[in-house]
Amino acid sequence: MYAKRAAIVVITSLAVSSFAESVISPEVHQDRSVTFRLKAPNAKGVMLRCEGKTAPMQKDEQDVWSITTAPLDPDIYSYSFLVDGLRINDPGNPLLKYSLIDTESQVHVPGPTTLAWELNDVPHGVIHRHHFRSKIIGDEREFLVYTPPGYDPVAKRPYPVLYLLHGFSDAENAWIDVGRANVILDNLIARKQAKPMIIVMPLGYGDLHMLDGGWQANTKSPEWWKLRDESFKKFHDSLLAEIIPSVEKNYHVSMKRTARAIAGLSMGGEQSLLFGLNGPDRFAWIGAFSSGGLKNIDFNQKFPDANEKVNHRLRLLWISCGKEDELFASNQKFEQWLNTKGIAHTWVEKPGRHSFLVWRRSLAEFAPLLFQDNR
Amino acid sequence: MYAKRAAIVVITSLAVSSFAESVISPEVHQDRSVTFRLKAPNAKGVMLRCEGKTAPMQKDEQDVWSITTAPLDPDIYSYSFLVDGLRINDPGNPLLKYSLIDTESQVHVPGPTTLAWELNDVPHGVIHRHHFRSKIIGDEREFLVYTPPGYDPVAKRPYPVLYLLHGFSDAENAWIDVGRANVILDNLIARKQAKPMIIVMPLGYGDLHMLDGGWQANTKSPEWWKLRDESFKKFHDSLLAEIIPSVEKNYHVSMKRTARAIAGLSMGGEQSLLFGLNGPDRFAWIGAFSSGGLKNIDFNQKFPDANEKVNHRLRLLWISCGKEDELFASNQKFEQWLNTKGIAHTWVEKPGRHSFLVWRRSLAEFAPLLFQDNR
Repeated sequence: MYAKRAAIVVITSLAVSSFAESVISPEVHQDRSVTFRLKAPNAKGVMLRCEGKTAPMQKDEQDVWSITTAPLDPDIYSYSFLVDGLRINDPGNPLLKYSLIDTESQVHVPGPTTLAWELNDVPHGVIHRHHFRSKIIGDEREFLVYTPPGYDPVAKRPYPVLYLLHGFSDAENAWIDVGRANVILDNLIARKQAKPMIIVMPLGYGDLHMLDGGWQANTKSPEWWKLRDESFKKFHDSLLAEIIPSVEKNYHVSMKRTARAIAGLSMGGEQSLLFGLNGPDRFAWIGAFSSGGLKNIDFNQKFPDANEKVNHRLRLLWISCGKEDELFASNQKFEQWLNTKGIAHTWVEKPGRHSFLVWRRSLAEFAPLLFQDNR
Repeated sequence: MYAKRAAIVVITSLAVSSFAESVISPEVHQDRSVTFRLKAPNAKGVMLRCEGKTAPMQKDEQDVWSITTAPLDPDIYSYSFLVDGLRINDPGNPLLKYSLIDTESQVHVPGPTTLAWELNDVPHGVIHRHHFRSKIIGDEREFLVYTPPGYDPVAKRPYPVLYLLHGFSDAENAWIDVGRANVILDNLIARKQAKPMIIVMPLGYGDLHMLDGGWQANTKSPEWWKLRDESFKKFHDSLLAEIIPSVEKNYHVSMKRTARAIAGLSMGGEQSLLFGLNGPDRFAWIGAFSSGGLKNIDFNQKFPDANEKVNHRLRLLWISCGKEDELFASNQKFEQWLNTKGIAHTWVEKPGRHSFLVWRRSLAEFAPLLFQDNR
């Protein structure tokens, strides 16, 4: 069936460039400029790709390619290198933005402790990884649960819960390892700007074939969109029938709809709108950050019961998008549709593109609004 | 201070090879052979490096480099690609062996459910990530805690605890994400082959400068070994004064020495010997898998109180090493030193090299021996 076949053999004479061979990368300087370096003696050209921008790197006499940026705003940036057109991570940098299809490197340019995502010497919550077999989806998977600092399983009042959904290509860990949701909540709770809450982060695919190679091309076919709809449906059903009951069994959480929020970014933003607006009996609080998919769906068809009656059920419908995001127009279109339907909501335009730079800020702005009238 | 400086600019005309562009890699075939693929049109040569072996890949007319192995034993293998000598991960494969200095890709060749690391439809434990500020080490760090299936915080008998340490270059997640310690224990507990136990996995560096670029060269200098000793000392002190008390406060665990084990691989194996043999008041069970560092230390100096009296304190001293491991000779030397000291122990020679293929099996063999006479 496959032509070539070779045993793996030891080739002892091979000169292998070791990972991170005495090259420091990235190096964040005092003035917040950053030097990126890559030792690649045989490359003809190396470029830095960082947050959607690309720039050529220069080679020195030691075969180290490098570039130093202008001073950057304090933030956490994702980047990779293009080596003769091949995209790779920075081999010397352990800070990864893990993804199911395009893991990148990250660089943290530190800033004042007042920034939402900066680690502070405050009490920290705990993150729990739950493994389960989904009968609905038919595989083994995990979800993460953040319990706030000082979580008390026998507290007088049960905790409210935010179901927080990741974007396409990411996994259940993204909101922690890239989005720093735990750090953001630790900080907000320490400052009494957010209510102590549980955050649940599931894997947002009901069918992982959504991610199959060449998905960019696949999205041009109706089959892919059908697969996507089925994937969303299965994930929805697993969330409701498997994950939420498990959380409500294992944690001291309220089962009232007014103590349940759903929010997400990109694909997870769209899912939050779909599951939330179509399920106000379950979720009274909805957040949708830079929602994906809105360009391709018929709002009236996907939200059949969305009308002003929902205003009596929802406590918050909060929608944000970066102004430089390719999805900005479709998010704006959705916001306008909400207006035509008379559905109360908050619409927030943020600087930036389709990136965690926007989403960390969105969560930091959204979380303080949650459960403030929790009755 | 640094010569080149450039703002990151948008270069819209750049043709970027997308990650995982319609290339499936790795592909595990029915007969357990594996095809690895990489699309790298501009590369002059691409090689596969897998578990210490290297083999050339062949380019096809679509610029896809590939190689198909002979049928492999069911296992989880680590690998990377060498593109014109530059080592990179498989961009299309989300299964990573994360490390602080040399993250690689992994491929899982599935086998029978009786294999220790194969996920089975049995009850699963939960993994908890605890963030804390170490005053002793002076940074923010995490440790992981595995609680066994059905963990009951008010059970009649408190749980025994295994402190499980990772190797040099790895981090606190390695025993879970690569070693599958949770899967191994879930399976053993389901089969009643191991006692339900808590496993605690800390970050094993008291000073992360141990990992600074060029550490291979650094190890030739006495300063590096001094740094290493100080790093071990700080980690030891943090483990005893910060992590163990936190575990004993937050989990329903026994505080008796006979209910406390310490084990690890490579650097963590050596640390287990150092902390365990020098601290039988704290740990009655010791496991050391493919221990590092033994070549370079004076046993009599590092284990001043190690003599046959320790036999009355220790319940188990279990030492293993792969026969093809470069560290085999030094582990054997240590085992012989134990004999001269009259210290009772179990010595296990395993097939294989310095790899998780050996360590998963070591844990699966070691864990059933623990706490069987817990009094």
